[in-house]
Amino acid sequence: MNAVITVDPRDGTRRATDLTETGDVLLGEIVARASRAARWLTDVGRHGRAGVLEAIADSLESRRAHLVATAESETGLGRPRLDQELTRAALQFRMFADVVRDGGYVEAAIDHAADTPLGRGPDLRRMLVPLGPVAVFGASNFPFAFSVAGGDTASALAAGCPVVVKAHPSHPLTSHASWRAIESAVRDAGGPDGVVAIVYGEQAGRSLVRHPGIRAAALTGSIGAARALQAAIDERPDPIPLYAELSSVNPIVVLPAAAAERSDQIAEGLFASFTGSGGQLCTKPGLAFVPSDPAGDRLVSALRERVASSGGATLLNERIRDAFESGTAALARAGASVSARPRIDPGTGFTVAPALMEVALPRLTAEIADECFGPLIVVVRYREVTELGAALVTVPPSLTGSIHSGPGDDVAAVRGLVDVLAARCGRLVFDGYPTGVRVSWAQHHGGPWPSTNAVHTSVGATSIRRFLRPLAWQDAPDWILPEELRDDHTAIPRRVDGRLEPAVESPHR
Amino acid sequence: MNAVITVDPRDGTRRATDLTETGDVLLGEIVARASRAARWLTDVGRHGRAGVLEAIADSLESRRAHLVATAESETGLGRPRLDQELTRAALQFRMFADVVRDGGYVEAAIDHAADTPLGRGPDLRRMLVPLGPVAVFGASNFPFAFSVAGGDTASALAAGCPVVVKAHPSHPLTSHASWRAIESAVRDAGGPDGVVAIVYGEQAGRSLVRHPGIRAAALTGSIGAARALQAAIDERPDPIPLYAELSSVNPIVVLPAAAAERSDQIAEGLFASFTGSGGQLCTKPGLAFVPSDPAGDRLVSALRERVASSGGATLLNERIRDAFESGTAALARAGASVSARPRIDPGTGFTVAPALMEVALPRLTAEIADECFGPLIVVVRYREVTELGAALVTVPPSLTGSIHSGPGDDVAAVRGLVDVLAARCGRLVFDGYPTGVRVSWAQHHGGPWPSTNAVHTSVGATSIRRFLRPLAWQDAPDWILPEELRDDHTAIPRRVDGRLEPAVESPHR
Repeated sequence: MNAVITVDPRDGTRRATDLTETGDVLLGEIVARASRAARWLTDVGRHGRAGVLEAIADSLESRRAHLVATAESETGLGRPRLDQELTRAALQFRMFADVVRDGGYVEAAIDHAADTPLGRGPDLRRMLVPLGPVAVFGASNFPFAFSVAGGDTASALAAGCPVVVKAHPSHPLTSHASWRAIESAVRDAGGPDGVVAIVYGEQAGRSLVRHPGIRAAALTGSIGAARALQAAIDERPDPIPLYAELSSVNPIVVLPAAAAERSDQIAEGLFASFTGSGGQLCTKPGLAFVPSDPAGDRLVSALRERVASSGGATLLNERIRDAFESGTAALARAGASVSARPRIDPGTGFTVAPALMEVALPRLTAEIADECFGPLIVVVRYREVTELGAALVTVPPSLTGSIHSGPGDDVAAVRGLVDVLAARCGRLVFDGYPTGVRVSWAQHHGGPWPSTNAVHTSVGATSIRRFLRPLAWQDAPDWILPEELRDDHTAIPRRVDGRLEPAVESPHR
Repeated sequence: MNAVITVDPRDGTRRATDLTETGDVLLGEIVARASRAARWLTDVGRHGRAGVLEAIADSLESRRAHLVATAESETGLGRPRLDQELTRAALQFRMFADVVRDGGYVEAAIDHAADTPLGRGPDLRRMLVPLGPVAVFGASNFPFAFSVAGGDTASALAAGCPVVVKAHPSHPLTSHASWRAIESAVRDAGGPDGVVAIVYGEQAGRSLVRHPGIRAAALTGSIGAARALQAAIDERPDPIPLYAELSSVNPIVVLPAAAAERSDQIAEGLFASFTGSGGQLCTKPGLAFVPSDPAGDRLVSALRERVASSGGATLLNERIRDAFESGTAALARAGASVSARPRIDPGTGFTVAPALMEVALPRLTAEIADECFGPLIVVVRYREVTELGAALVTVPPSLTGSIHSGPGDDVAAVRGLVDVLAARCGRLVFDGYPTGVRVSWAQHHGGPWPSTNAVHTSVGATSIRRFLRPLAWQDAPDWILPEELRDDHTAIPRRVDGRLEPAVESPHR
């Protein structure tokens, strides 16, 4: 059994942990326990699950100091950021408690028996039910909010699905400590083993998605990782959904009047957005379109000053550091020029210098428009707003597309560019920056390939839909129906005979 | 250019039609027109699209005589059945008009800017938007309701997606006539070319799903057809969703008290359900579990009499006829015995004799539990209700699972069997038969692999979700928002700051 290694990206030290890579026999037992645990998650009901989700949030927060310190030593992300991320992770569990109590997510519908143009129609009742055990593959860049204690785990549990997380090799101890926090809350709530489990090692990840007991998988990672998991899934006789959030360039368009009105403010915002967390966010803006005019010059000059005087960024691991350095070099070879980059002593860890690169719009190519994970932005200088539509089509579809405009910008042009971006992203940001993803009901974190492979979000209330499937009951006796589908249950919104009926609030609520 | 052939299954005559297989150049033009037509479907708005859907329903019904006669000559399905199917197809378009007017399907959500534990959260608004042009592959067995004028076309159009249908080779003239009916309604409504288009030939089908302009595909067909389409999709750089409804055995469990109470009635129901439409329905019950007791004997004996005195069934095409005959022979080799089968003169067409087969539960194998498309049912005789749970697990997951019980049956046993079926099907039918799928809001037509490959339905109001993706607007000015997401738009149900607000009915409605 191979010991799991942890690496401190701040100084590059590697050491063996007490954890070992999960072999196939143990993995089989873990999935079997997960399959059995599904019953408990259903039996406790929506309100019971909501309580468990809140207990998990409490448990995570009660271990904040240990979790944050562990994550800092494994990710190099600073304490303020990790502290905030843990708050976000707890918030996600609490939000899903609200979602589950609200009950609208089950999409309950009742069609009473009725005469139809095709004869007598039977009584039909439909709601969404859990898919079964879900495999979760967390991301390197969010050791809490997109990892063991992340949104995939929270939404799958909320749906009623047991979760088996494959720990990210970049933060095994954080993963283990997060799992312990979750597992202890589940146990205190009376839950059996297997409600949330954890496995270690790449081979275990592949075995996991091939296991017949696993009914869905969720990944936040690279296109390469998604292809490897999909290849493993394709070996199954029964395909299962893989929800993958992958790669995103997140173009930002600064229109001339915006640059004229607030060049310094936009430079400040762009700098914070592309360098925060070492630029290691899936929503990091990788391309900014800035006008080739005096206002645009001022904006780029202000950005240049900020970058030139910035410090180094410690990246998450050696692979990401190497990819960043080779990506930066590739951009230069492809014709983007380095506009600002401080000299940084990398030390023994995975520290790099942020980079501002520039290219004239006519020289924008697919290579330059490709994602480079880390603290780098390419500013694309354009002469005419009319050039932007075609240029945006060379940018790969992304999670987000942003547009900054001012009072003097042509409204029709703005509308046209928004249409182009809307066809190629999942979230349109106006006069703002794509980083800092609000966790809420109306959030959508997803987009056309290659940003994701799905028509569902991985952040926010509706991400629960990924782990549910519809089930219909035809002419069922009342006692066999789930309570959500009985005639007298009015505590959740339901569609009855085609008409949406909001929940009737109970008096003691 | 190869001429498209039509075959009359009643006498096996083949003749060339005026239609030709669609080459890649024409196909490229068709998809380009579809991509352009997406704009019109969005611009007419929800109410405009609802009107178009109703006009299509009217147009189909106004051509009823021609459509039904054409379909009869290509499918051998009788006029009463085809007449009813056309009514169903029209009903589907009308139901989606209601769905689109209701507007709940866009899942509109608004989170106003607010202070959160993570700082100031931006204004976020989310709704579902159309995916873009959809490729539809219809089924052989429903020349209207699951073909050119079927639910996939209706739900994709309702969503705002142009449709390119690949005509089924079993009914090209019906496909063409259906397309003409739809196309003329779209044109009368002022729609451009390309809102609904049709292509012919297997090669055109593969080219279609590989075309970059196609954003999703829907298939009702065989596992082999789904694998071929998925292989073509896998050649794309950007994967697209394939929603496939495939194969289903639809087990029916008759518990002892049900058999004792109503053996003749159940025999009558089973006979009608497995022989209707020549047994060529995806919801045909292929396996019935009947007790090995005197009541079960009466039931089987009544079923045997009905089958022995029944006439032949004309199957849809030569391939289906051959598969039925070889499937029946394979079942016999696998250990099921022929319990009743009339002698039928097949004539020159694709006519077969219905078959009732029997096997004792301990001899039920995966081979016997496999789907055999056509007028055949395998009765599985069981001694103890406690044997049924394990036996049902050998049956492939299905679209439906049915259970007949009587007042004397053990409630706990019923509940246990319903749990087993619920894990392995998409619709639970109580004291009824799975055929005759009601088109309504609460319907679910889907199930675990191999019955479908998706967590969505292909029949009923919610099937529209397959052709939509979420899009979010962050801090968008009012004038850029779709009307559904403006603060003052209260005509559709929306989730505002987490709370579901039903539509406010306008006074003139």
